[in-house]
Amino acid sequence: MFNKILIANRGEIALRVLRACKELGIETVAVHSTADANAMHVRLADESVCIGPPPARDSYLNIPQLLAACEITGAEAVHPGYGFLSENARFAEILTAHGIAFIGPTAEHIRIMGDKIEAKATARRLGIPVVPGSDGAVTTDEDALRIAADIGYPVLVKAAAGGGGRGMRVAMNEAEMSSALSAARSEAKNAFGDDAVYIEKYLLKPRHIEVQVLGDGQGNAIHLGERDCSLQRRHQKVWEEALSPALNQEQRDKIGGIVANAMAELKYAGVGTIEFLYEDGEFYFIEMNTRLQVEHPVTEMITGIDLVNEQIKVASGAALTLRQSDVTFNGHAIECRINAENPATFAPSPGTITYWHPPGGLGVRVDSGVYQGYRIPPNYDSLIGKLIVHGRSRVECLMRLRRCLDEFVVDGIQSTIPLFRHLVDNQDIANGMYDIHWLEKWLATNPFEA
Amino acid sequence: MFNKILIANRGEIALRVLRACKELGIETVAVHSTADANAMHVRLADESVCIGPPPARDSYLNIPQLLAACEITGAEAVHPGYGFLSENARFAEILTAHGIAFIGPTAEHIRIMGDKIEAKATARRLGIPVVPGSDGAVTTDEDALRIAADIGYPVLVKAAAGGGGRGMRVAMNEAEMSSALSAARSEAKNAFGDDAVYIEKYLLKPRHIEVQVLGDGQGNAIHLGERDCSLQRRHQKVWEEALSPALNQEQRDKIGGIVANAMAELKYAGVGTIEFLYEDGEFYFIEMNTRLQVEHPVTEMITGIDLVNEQIKVASGAALTLRQSDVTFNGHAIECRINAENPATFAPSPGTITYWHPPGGLGVRVDSGVYQGYRIPPNYDSLIGKLIVHGRSRVECLMRLRRCLDEFVVDGIQSTIPLFRHLVDNQDIANGMYDIHWLEKWLATNPFEA
Repeated sequence: MFNKILIANRGEIALRVLRACKELGIETVAVHSTADANAMHVRLADESVCIGPPPARDSYLNIPQLLAACEITGAEAVHPGYGFLSENARFAEILTAHGIAFIGPTAEHIRIMGDKIEAKATARRLGIPVVPGSDGAVTTDEDALRIAADIGYPVLVKAAAGGGGRGMRVAMNEAEMSSALSAARSEAKNAFGDDAVYIEKYLLKPRHIEVQVLGDGQGNAIHLGERDCSLQRRHQKVWEEALSPALNQEQRDKIGGIVANAMAELKYAGVGTIEFLYEDGEFYFIEMNTRLQVEHPVTEMITGIDLVNEQIKVASGAALTLRQSDVTFNGHAIECRINAENPATFAPSPGTITYWHPPGGLGVRVDSGVYQGYRIPPNYDSLIGKLIVHGRSRVECLMRLRRCLDEFVVDGIQSTIPLFRHLVDNQDIANGMYDIHWLEKWLATNPFEA
Repeated sequence: MFNKILIANRGEIALRVLRACKELGIETVAVHSTADANAMHVRLADESVCIGPPPARDSYLNIPQLLAACEITGAEAVHPGYGFLSENARFAEILTAHGIAFIGPTAEHIRIMGDKIEAKATARRLGIPVVPGSDGAVTTDEDALRIAADIGYPVLVKAAAGGGGRGMRVAMNEAEMSSALSAARSEAKNAFGDDAVYIEKYLLKPRHIEVQVLGDGQGNAIHLGERDCSLQRRHQKVWEEALSPALNQEQRDKIGGIVANAMAELKYAGVGTIEFLYEDGEFYFIEMNTRLQVEHPVTEMITGIDLVNEQIKVASGAALTLRQSDVTFNGHAIECRINAENPATFAPSPGTITYWHPPGGLGVRVDSGVYQGYRIPPNYDSLIGKLIVHGRSRVECLMRLRRCLDEFVVDGIQSTIPLFRHLVDNQDIANGMYDIHWLEKWLATNPFEA
């Protein structure tokens, strides 16, 4: 086991990793930018090194500075947290070349999963369900119709050279195919100088469901159930739960088994998340995150398993001691991302936290790097904490969440807490009836005063 | 279900009860003394009523004032917390006479269990193991020797009229009986004018193990496992755990079953705790607490069951929905009582908390009524919070506790946190090898600087 770990991150996740290290008896090195000298993770670490000024490219993304910090402190391993260098294959390679362990998968696995096309091909090869579609561009209308009928309507006709939604048309049925094809082709031609299009199944109201995996790089891998992260705004997750209210145990076991087998075959090391769109009982691979995720605590709350602890053990070379049968799901957990933002407009609200009183009691966890009197620097994302609530059932969890939101006091800045007060009282949310479009629609039709 | 509950208490337990009410959708009324106007439970309650000045007899123990507060606010039930009026049968009777529900057992059950002799007789009648001894005074040395041989040595020879340790002798074996008897008799004669003595089994190194029960007053009762509260100083519990490191599952099921059956037979309503001394595989009834206990959270952490929620439901007339088979024990939990005291001398340390930063993360719960800037009034006990830590195993729990104690910042006053830092590193504690005398012995031989 490592004696000393450098945590190449900031904020709540730096503190989260530090806690796992302490519980393993491992010394910690915090790094920080000049803007983060007063951060909690710096105060609680055994040692700390200033690695430069903001913006992040001059500090948290500065590989030479991080290497120097490792050398100065004698850190044997680096935990990258999420964001920053956590999915940077080059960083993993450089560390390894310097004899420092990267707490995460191999550079090769990071690279494969970081490339959309290669990731999808790998997923398909490993038996993970992907969005069905044409293999590359379709040339004739006859081919297009045959493929669409095969996939089932609705389908998306997409410019092969496209991006940003241009050269994209939905056909709800066969009758709409001809006009969709010609419109997509002409728009693609105009926008990209290339009228090649391909066809993909179109999901009307998908949910975002992701499966948490853990592998040891030695061919052992397990899944830790799924998270439902459908409540998003501009592709940013806002509220996450485990398990998904949409799945039954059979579906869970099936997709979990597929994913765990795939990761075992890949000899994947560390934690990872396979993200899917889910509709009508079917899963469609989106991407794999080869790192710890912001929302990992909901999985920890229902399994009791400390994912960062497991990450560190695997990175030190240990084989997985957990078997699939050791993983049981206990109750329900929900996470709300507390951001320093105007809850109605989502405009950032940095400043000094003049009063900070997080909720407590049974089933309540607050992961946060802030404290009363802390000045939030304007240089980084607006996440100031995560409220994670566990209950024996989803109903109990929602009641507890409501109570916690009432109890949580954050003064001096605006936060997203009032948004969650609205959401926790919403009937669709209570019923678990929401898809990835729900929150944006709700926000558009339910303006509220911040 | 009740619409509004008055919480007849203060501090962390008032907040604890308030949280359960909120999660049940019940309105809350806080009461407070003039010294507690700024308390957290007052700030978070829907309504609050000042019931008088300190000391407690003029406010928290003032039954007419509490009744008036119920009338003013229309509270339908009163939760007494622990301490104060929580085991006052008269209070329960008066509330009931006024049509207000007392959230606790019947006045009769409070009264029986509040009387040492009647409690022991009731326990024996219900099949709960009690300390074996002579039935009343022994008259001849022959009787005394026969009874002692029957019970097994060591035995305690005790003045029947005695108290305060006078007229009390231990006989480790038969040879010591004669001198023990004559010494106890003569001391009893001198001290109390009565030389009658009785004989009781003497426990050399007992543990304090208590069983949590829950009944609905309708003949249904379950147990929720045991807590080990052997770490005490001057009969005050300092550190509590669930489950006990001393019991195996067979012992647990056996004593739990005995106690649950006894409570079912008694038609006991609400939560209660049967306290035992435990030595060499045998349990010896000490007393029953007919209320919520300070250390109830460790039971909640390993069962996931909210005991205050269950208390309230039962008091509203609901039958128990939990069956014994619904109660499973998950991992291990430890509670440390954070007192505003000098950790070496235990002298109270009231004052203003200038900095308060409780630990967070997976498996961590802090129940506290204080906040940064809060001035601890000198009028009440010194408990300012409870740190409760859960882990998948006792070893994980101890590692997490150590991390939390390092993270916990309380400035402006002294607290017992440094004492726990010593205890968590102690090998006897790590091994679970301690009895009710351990802590006082350790304190006597390990003076430390506060």
